[in-house]
Amino acid sequence: MSGGPGVPDDGLGVLPVPGLPEVTEGIALGELIAAETELEQGDVVVVSQKIVSKAEGRVLSISSAIPGAEARKLAAVLGKDPALVELILAESREVLRAEGGVLIAETHHGFVCANAGVDTSNLPEEGTACLLPEDPDASARRIRTEITAGLEGPLLAVIVSDSFGRAWRLGQAEVAIGCAGISPLDDWRGRADAAGRRLEATAIAIADEAAAAADLVRDKTSGVPAVIVRGLGRHVTEEDGPGAAALRRTRDEDLFR
Amino acid sequence: MSGGPGVPDDGLGVLPVPGLPEVTEGIALGELIAAETELEQGDVVVVSQKIVSKAEGRVLSISSAIPGAEARKLAAVLGKDPALVELILAESREVLRAEGGVLIAETHHGFVCANAGVDTSNLPEEGTACLLPEDPDASARRIRTEITAGLEGPLLAVIVSDSFGRAWRLGQAEVAIGCAGISPLDDWRGRADAAGRRLEATAIAIADEAAAAADLVRDKTSGVPAVIVRGLGRHVTEEDGPGAAALRRTRDEDLFR
Repeated sequence: MSGGPGVPDDGLGVLPVPGLPEVTEGIALGELIAAETELEQGDVVVVSQKIVSKAEGRVLSISSAIPGAEARKLAAVLGKDPALVELILAESREVLRAEGGVLIAETHHGFVCANAGVDTSNLPEEGTACLLPEDPDASARRIRTEITAGLEGPLLAVIVSDSFGRAWRLGQAEVAIGCAGISPLDDWRGRADAAGRRLEATAIAIADEAAAAADLVRDKTSGVPAVIVRGLGRHVTEEDGPGAAALRRTRDEDLFR
Repeated sequence: MSGGPGVPDDGLGVLPVPGLPEVTEGIALGELIAAETELEQGDVVVVSQKIVSKAEGRVLSISSAIPGAEARKLAAVLGKDPALVELILAESREVLRAEGGVLIAETHHGFVCANAGVDTSNLPEEGTACLLPEDPDASARRIRTEITAGLEGPLLAVIVSDSFGRAWRLGQAEVAIGCAGISPLDDWRGRADAAGRRLEATAIAIADEAAAAADLVRDKTSGVPAVIVRGLGRHVTEEDGPGAAALRRTRDEDLFR
């Protein structure tokens, strides 16, 4: 690994991108980020889902939703606004749990998270809700193209990230819901350990770990929606790759649904 | 945040600690790490479970275990060595799933992971298995004391980390199984967003995200068992704190057991 500004030798630098303006619908996020920071070969640019959704017009008025029978029933159980529950159901392929005020759903993309990713915090207008991007891998690919268009060919990757709760562990951790230009899984199956024996480790979720690293320089109130993770060049690929879709555990492979 | 060597302004540096010798039982890991690196005020030292377990003599000969009836039954279902399954059961409070060659158990500490954390890779001797530390929070506290004993009072934190699989998502991610000197959960409940409204985000699993960041500079074959995460000083506390025990979701709070 080459180091470079903000990166210790053989280490990693995690650098917030300050000074991004309030994001509105239709804005080219990649151009905005490229203009605010000096990007290097091999950088991984981690962008918060919230600004991606805003740029893609995925902020809706909650009252625009007409709650159906299922939404009204769930809303009563959960103590939530029926219109908000209707928005959540429209984003869901399946509700996994609805109890204790918490609704855990599988989104149409195949991600399992609270409220199917529908969020009402950190939005400029009262009474609105933010949905996940329709296709977060496509979002990552588009932002990657926008960033590299203005630069002389640096090879870099983009991750779209969001905070998800976890089974078995308290607290939320940031994960990749979309990515382009990075292998999201570093597959160790079949490789040997330091003593030459087969490794039990299977595959490391590099894109999720990079999203988590980026989250450490954020502050949920200050709004640092873009972060550079520098020093991961060995995971950056020329092609866009399989995206964060490769991180979804399908129902057949999942022992916990 | 103050920056300092290897840390970009307002950012984070993630620095491998090279040159650690092979760890053997009884060695004072904290002294070893302090001798190999220049530690700074506010550093978070992330230490791999494997070397902590080795230092604590938690490596056993698999054939030392006499498989009971349950171990023999599970071993047949899973296609595993019955003696190894016996070791796993001895580390388990409860087996959650045993199918498709995978055994997911809750450890006596209350962590849910594959094989109750019993691992046979990256060990010097064939036919041995490594167990998790008996009390990883106590391990972190001891390593913290060892590190700071030799230094003029820098306030730093220690995390003991391991790679865990996840429900719903493919790939393993590094998490904190023990910690001292860091608030493992950064609690945002009741705080306000940039627009002054209540945040929906509950609590960020800072210690898990720091463990994940550290993993990005590791290479599962090269053995970088200690990593410094520099720039998290605001999360480092004078007291040892609640440890990674605070990250366990208890059975009552868990919708997925």
